[in-house]
Amino acid sequence: MSLRSTIDFMLYDWLDSVSLTNRNRFIEHSRETFDATLDMCERIAREKYAPFNRLVDIQEPRIEGDRVVLPEATYEAHKAYAESGMLSAAQDADIGGMQLPHSIEAAANAFFACASIGINSSMLTSSNANLLMAHGSPKQQEVFARQEYAGRWSGTMCLSEPQAGSSLSDIVTRAVPDDEANGVAWEHDPLGPRYRLRGNKMWISAGDHELTENIVHLVLAKIPDAEGKLIPGTRGISLFIVPKRLVTENGELTGDRNDVALAGLNHKLGWRGTTNTLLNFGEGKYKVDGKAGAIGYLVGEPGKGLACMFHMMNQARIAVGIGATALGLAGYYASLDYARNRPQGRPILGSGKDSAQAQISIIQHADVKRMLLAQKSYGEGALALALYCARLVDEQQTGDAASADDARLLLDLLTPIAKSWPSEWCLEGNSLAIQIHGGYGYTRDFAVEQYWRDNRLNMIHEGTHGIQALDLLGRKVLMENGRGMQLLAARVQATIIKASAQPRLTEFAQSLGAAVQKLGLATQSAWSTGNPQEALANAVPYMQAMGHTVLAWIWLDQACCVLANDPDLLVPSNQGRIGCTHYFYRFELPKISAWLNVVSARDMTCADFPEDAF
Amino acid sequence: MSLRSTIDFMLYDWLDSVSLTNRNRFIEHSRETFDATLDMCERIAREKYAPFNRLVDIQEPRIEGDRVVLPEATYEAHKAYAESGMLSAAQDADIGGMQLPHSIEAAANAFFACASIGINSSMLTSSNANLLMAHGSPKQQEVFARQEYAGRWSGTMCLSEPQAGSSLSDIVTRAVPDDEANGVAWEHDPLGPRYRLRGNKMWISAGDHELTENIVHLVLAKIPDAEGKLIPGTRGISLFIVPKRLVTENGELTGDRNDVALAGLNHKLGWRGTTNTLLNFGEGKYKVDGKAGAIGYLVGEPGKGLACMFHMMNQARIAVGIGATALGLAGYYASLDYARNRPQGRPILGSGKDSAQAQISIIQHADVKRMLLAQKSYGEGALALALYCARLVDEQQTGDAASADDARLLLDLLTPIAKSWPSEWCLEGNSLAIQIHGGYGYTRDFAVEQYWRDNRLNMIHEGTHGIQALDLLGRKVLMENGRGMQLLAARVQATIIKASAQPRLTEFAQSLGAAVQKLGLATQSAWSTGNPQEALANAVPYMQAMGHTVLAWIWLDQACCVLANDPDLLVPSNQGRIGCTHYFYRFELPKISAWLNVVSARDMTCADFPEDAF
Repeated sequence: MSLRSTIDFMLYDWLDSVSLTNRNRFIEHSRETFDATLDMCERIAREKYAPFNRLVDIQEPRIEGDRVVLPEATYEAHKAYAESGMLSAAQDADIGGMQLPHSIEAAANAFFACASIGINSSMLTSSNANLLMAHGSPKQQEVFARQEYAGRWSGTMCLSEPQAGSSLSDIVTRAVPDDEANGVAWEHDPLGPRYRLRGNKMWISAGDHELTENIVHLVLAKIPDAEGKLIPGTRGISLFIVPKRLVTENGELTGDRNDVALAGLNHKLGWRGTTNTLLNFGEGKYKVDGKAGAIGYLVGEPGKGLACMFHMMNQARIAVGIGATALGLAGYYASLDYARNRPQGRPILGSGKDSAQAQISIIQHADVKRMLLAQKSYGEGALALALYCARLVDEQQTGDAASADDARLLLDLLTPIAKSWPSEWCLEGNSLAIQIHGGYGYTRDFAVEQYWRDNRLNMIHEGTHGIQALDLLGRKVLMENGRGMQLLAARVQATIIKASAQPRLTEFAQSLGAAVQKLGLATQSAWSTGNPQEALANAVPYMQAMGHTVLAWIWLDQACCVLANDPDLLVPSNQGRIGCTHYFYRFELPKISAWLNVVSARDMTCADFPEDAF
Repeated sequence: MSLRSTIDFMLYDWLDSVSLTNRNRFIEHSRETFDATLDMCERIAREKYAPFNRLVDIQEPRIEGDRVVLPEATYEAHKAYAESGMLSAAQDADIGGMQLPHSIEAAANAFFACASIGINSSMLTSSNANLLMAHGSPKQQEVFARQEYAGRWSGTMCLSEPQAGSSLSDIVTRAVPDDEANGVAWEHDPLGPRYRLRGNKMWISAGDHELTENIVHLVLAKIPDAEGKLIPGTRGISLFIVPKRLVTENGELTGDRNDVALAGLNHKLGWRGTTNTLLNFGEGKYKVDGKAGAIGYLVGEPGKGLACMFHMMNQARIAVGIGATALGLAGYYASLDYARNRPQGRPILGSGKDSAQAQISIIQHADVKRMLLAQKSYGEGALALALYCARLVDEQQTGDAASADDARLLLDLLTPIAKSWPSEWCLEGNSLAIQIHGGYGYTRDFAVEQYWRDNRLNMIHEGTHGIQALDLLGRKVLMENGRGMQLLAARVQATIIKASAQPRLTEFAQSLGAAVQKLGLATQSAWSTGNPQEALANAVPYMQAMGHTVLAWIWLDQACCVLANDPDLLVPSNQGRIGCTHYFYRFELPKISAWLNVVSARDMTCADFPEDAF
């Protein structure tokens, strides 16, 4: 099935997205406007992204003088995306947005990620602007966010530093109040309290390029105390807008550079269409008013920067999951096409193979079907989870107070799963896509090796697998006395009750019930001694098990929807969804036992392993 | 621990390799000569291979005119390897070999694969020559094999064709008797019955280059019947020596090319140091005696070519496993080094993190240890299995009749495991090595991304994962009425008995006993209906489960050896081996349940999935 038909099923049959148009915020929308958005994105992705996916892998970004050179196709793709209005798809109409549900926006964006993950770095721009809409001053919103939504400027997030990757408490970029400039004291600058920043930021995606006339860096930095010392830990972190080019309070470029210098490009394994940079802030390469130090405008309150940044990070984490998902689906479609068209071998019969017969398409081999089903179950399962999460954002914004609060909490709980699970399993799916291609899959003449390389980033950026797992088991399952887990359990239970009424699904309803119980017991056992070292020693296996359990739930819930609409499975795509549910419950869900055993036992094999014994 | 110290433990403590020197064939050898070989290979690999591993990835082979250009470093490495004598390490002294045990040869070769898998294509040359020593005529051995052992000529294996990858019965390369030449009828050529070959061969590694003065292609082709038809299936396949440059019966180059043309190079995801080619045989580019058709000399009997080729294929499969293993270990060492030296984060304490404290090395984080232990258990486990298999070759050649026969059968059974398991799990290990490096691991500034790319080939070449699984469950477990499986079970049982006497290992002895029982029951269930379609529907999960069970046995057997020598675990490396055994039994072995469930149930979810439902 195509990505579009899969999205149609999920949005319209499963999530009943059209019902959202009864809510005030979406009252101007209809199935037709949703479809028009999907049509448009599908077309732009097909015309401006897909044909250039290999090109942007080969023509890596490079520096000429002090500029970053990208292939022409990237400019074209950026322009088409900006003109589509998708940068502000979910924003208010009165600031020029389409006021679409987030679930429609997420689905529409999947087309771009599937066509070329590397070209598409616009997620950073819109989530940067979204952060400003939530935490910036009205002036900052008007000057920075609006230009970003229009696609004239783009956005980054500058968190990591060479000595502080995952450990943000160790950043040392400093921000000190700027001197008076043009008669305006630092604290009265219309764009926000004005600081000078000095420090180095690493792994900054889209950190420099000429796609847009300006770049809005959102930068974490520390404001020293009276003695000039940085406050240890994350409490000392503040958030700043640091534009690449200086701007007036009316949002016009002054013509001067800010003191932000491109110190180098990272040469990556994949995802090469997007520059990844080391940026030096305030080293004096581009002095402002004759002085070194990058001009930055404080966003929100001093010392509250990390909390603001999480607004962007959470969006980025879900976007990473969707990107991984889209790559997984891209590999699935490519290998499905290959498997349908490649003749090789013969059926296994009791009588032995008959070499005089013509060869069959490899899709007829059981193991090729297994590899396709695995990919389908990972890719379509992850997409369903992503759209479910996006729907939670819609609920949070437009549901009644109780359901909005539930949606907020459930989304918080599911975010590490929505980020980590596709990163791990859709990568595995890409490996299976290579495998189906055989030797051809190992060549650069086919797309699948690039999907695999591109996807490998997703377990690393926006918080590694290990970080996600600590967040999940160390924070999310505990928060509000475990109410997030209770909410999840209640929704799973509702699915189990629906599925139990369907003879085709009873077996799976039971398996899911057992899995959830096992997960709950493991969660309790992990924390039963109250010692975080023991509880968190096997946080990643815990996250893997919870991920598989959540996905089993998502598949079963979709299966209930399928059978409600097509009880005799007359439609092949519906047979496919039920078959894929079978696959997931028979081949995947049983894996959780091995993961949960070590969690329940608070197994310290790894934690206690002596360093000199490796 | 270094590769050398790991090898020393496995060869000398675990496999008691010095006892081989009591056998007639190895009577001239001693621990000192074994060590000298390991020393030499370790040194050459360090000096001539490791420094150029990234270079051969960047400077991909390219065609200039009709020649393949390789980096200078490849010539130097080839020369050093040829001069080391390793091409004939295990061959008889009277043909210039070192007459070393295969287990020593395999261990010594691991240094090269670990240093640069791409530079090192000499495995094909020695296994090509080894095939000729087993199946060629004395003249073919003298002319071709001897030159290969000396490193003057190199070897290939030419099986696949564009339309016939895994399905060798479908090859269409034709071989017809050549005309009389220089008064010698085709059937009386001193080099063997002389044929003319026409056809295209795909995926030929080291298929063309100037590293050696000649290339000895071993080519599978079909001899048409009286009506000019090719016999369907593998029965019609014969084996030919087709030299790139024509040779006299004395093994001198005539100065003329044979009609073998380089049609193209494959541009690969990894393993770029080795050319991979499409070769056209007999298209007339280099006419011989004015006629198109590549001259080939029959090896063995007509129609028995595939059986001969399996001599080389089985060696190649084990070599693939060792290559995958060496890459897994290379990633382990690189990420271990990185983890020891990269400061990041702080310990998780009940009281919360104290950001005022200095950061710790990431090796102190439980999840980093988990990722290191996984790599160690995959890489060192696979190496132990590889050396165990190489020892079986030694037993087969120098053991008494009964043990030689057992060794033959057990090796046959274990070959698909020795090939597939490292290909899958050491690749996973390489992914974990990237993960430990974080963002740095995703850049080409560090070695680990290349290991991961290089290793991805190993599940594909020399028989895909799917092919290995069919071989295992469809042939190997059944052969000689299951005697191979009984032999394996007996050896596992012996380990269980040893381990049961060690209090530290009792738990694992029980787990292994249960695993073997589960595997045996699954094997029976799979075949209980006698229907190969049902039995083989889940052959890959079966192979995965058997692989993990075999590795669990290998680890437990090593653990017994450790405790026999160092009962109080005073030596850190021994603590490491026991800890790694813990890891494997707690985190890895439990995975087999999920795999075996579908095998035992003869689950047809995948096999029965309708093609149009994907």
